[in-house]
Amino acid sequence: MTGFPQLDAFRGGPGLVRLVGHRGARGVMPENTMEGFAFTLLAGVSLLEFDVVLTRDGVPVVTHNHHLDGAATRDAAGNWLMGQGPRVAELTLNELHGYDVGGVDVRSSYGRQFCDQVLLDGVRVPCLGDLLDLGHDPRFADLHFLLELKSDPALRDDARAREAFVAAIVAKVRDRGMAGRTILHSFDWHLLDVCRRAAPEMPTSCLSQMPETVDALCAGGLSGFVSQDCSLPRMVADAGGQLWCPNVEDVTPELVAEARRLDLIVLAWTVNETGDIDRMIEAGVDGIVTDYPGRAQHRLRLRGARW
Amino acid sequence: MTGFPQLDAFRGGPGLVRLVGHRGARGVMPENTMEGFAFTLLAGVSLLEFDVVLTRDGVPVVTHNHHLDGAATRDAAGNWLMGQGPRVAELTLNELHGYDVGGVDVRSSYGRQFCDQVLLDGVRVPCLGDLLDLGHDPRFADLHFLLELKSDPALRDDARAREAFVAAIVAKVRDRGMAGRTILHSFDWHLLDVCRRAAPEMPTSCLSQMPETVDALCAGGLSGFVSQDCSLPRMVADAGGQLWCPNVEDVTPELVAEARRLDLIVLAWTVNETGDIDRMIEAGVDGIVTDYPGRAQHRLRLRGARW
Repeated sequence: MTGFPQLDAFRGGPGLVRLVGHRGARGVMPENTMEGFAFTLLAGVSLLEFDVVLTRDGVPVVTHNHHLDGAATRDAAGNWLMGQGPRVAELTLNELHGYDVGGVDVRSSYGRQFCDQVLLDGVRVPCLGDLLDLGHDPRFADLHFLLELKSDPALRDDARAREAFVAAIVAKVRDRGMAGRTILHSFDWHLLDVCRRAAPEMPTSCLSQMPETVDALCAGGLSGFVSQDCSLPRMVADAGGQLWCPNVEDVTPELVAEARRLDLIVLAWTVNETGDIDRMIEAGVDGIVTDYPGRAQHRLRLRGARW
Repeated sequence: MTGFPQLDAFRGGPGLVRLVGHRGARGVMPENTMEGFAFTLLAGVSLLEFDVVLTRDGVPVVTHNHHLDGAATRDAAGNWLMGQGPRVAELTLNELHGYDVGGVDVRSSYGRQFCDQVLLDGVRVPCLGDLLDLGHDPRFADLHFLLELKSDPALRDDARAREAFVAAIVAKVRDRGMAGRTILHSFDWHLLDVCRRAAPEMPTSCLSQMPETVDALCAGGLSGFVSQDCSLPRMVADAGGQLWCPNVEDVTPELVAEARRLDLIVLAWTVNETGDIDRMIEAGVDGIVTDYPGRAQHRLRLRGARW
């Protein structure tokens, strides 16, 4: 738990709750875009959560799904794709950059959740390297990255492909000099094992959502992570993670207290509703991952807390 | 109506409705701040509405009221002022910059309207010159200014003070080379007379809100503006304005059509609710002044309109 300076940026404390921008700040700006990250930083939130996959030509890019989301992606003619878009792993970077990810289709069930989100034209899926380079801007000396590795179900049993995926991301982070400001984050705790071997200088963050997480750990013959009492914080600690990132619905004050005893940092996601924000503060989490940084700031301020 | 190139940026047309950011984008960012204007530009909205008054030492600054608003202003200790704050005209710029305008107190009736607005620390009331200088940034070549002059009731009968107020603002706009991208905007139509004399190169925009506007025009012995049928567009045209900026509640398709016949540009304010946005589009306004640019963009896009 020591020797990871980047953890300090995510650790809460008395009167201190960290704010992490979810895919930038999805409530306000198109998710996982440079424009959205720029806004998040402008909002005084310097901890960025985002998702990484690889293009066919092996470039780590920042987008949430293995397939482009038809409700958030337009073609060259400016029309939303609708339904499931192409698989990123089957597109070159150049082909990927033919799509516009500058906003959601509010006629879709997904887009309807984000009717106030800004709608831009000509926005491209960012390269991971371009996002990391923001860390060199002297205005953003506090910028840290919560980098989610999207585990590809198609490659679940291909150990070499999984190692190559991790290696490409780790190489990019090191190349841009941001290893000391990056945490590797995944629902796939076994992939985080690969990360720990490939990049011992970067902490790992175990995402969880119940009951899927425990089911997945058990079903995959992965019961090595499942301890007798099945407490998620204990499982994260046993797995070798430094952060536990539970779904907001799974957080209780007791589990947070246990995580603290295990010296884990707890970041809850995705914490958007006022009641959830308040409940997470009361539960004592280190930080919250939110689409609405302004809303969370006001709830914290009302309690005299900083972020 | 000719000879004012800056009008083109505000003129709508078939499938084109202009978006004007209200005090930046008050729904998202602290109003009338450089941070808020930066966000508005990031959101693809390059028409900025804002308010100007003078400090005691004669510096034009960007803030809405003659008095600092206690619900949106904190003292050096970080506490909101509550109630009415000091009069800007009685503060030097240096004294004014002792206050923090980085967000609202959501416990107040004013702040409660903007619970999602970002909350920042250490934000200062901008100088008009700094805002105008954004126009020199090559990224913001489309940036135009809808500059509201806040008429001071305490100086209503002091013609020299009113002329000095206008002169200070006009001098700043010219000094920064932005006269060709600025429109002078006020509820005080007589002050706009002063503007037209002082700055014939800048169009003027008559704000209205019924019934206060006609009452004020008549009560002040200002019935010269009030034509027989009392139609607001006709009054604006007679007064010499190029834009009519009605409160959203006062807009009808008939009045918009009349304004068009008079070659006036119509910008409605403050258009935040979805139903109002739709109604303004249907009424055929040239543009809408909004606190929520993202929301308005989606409503326009659903109708295939640009902005």
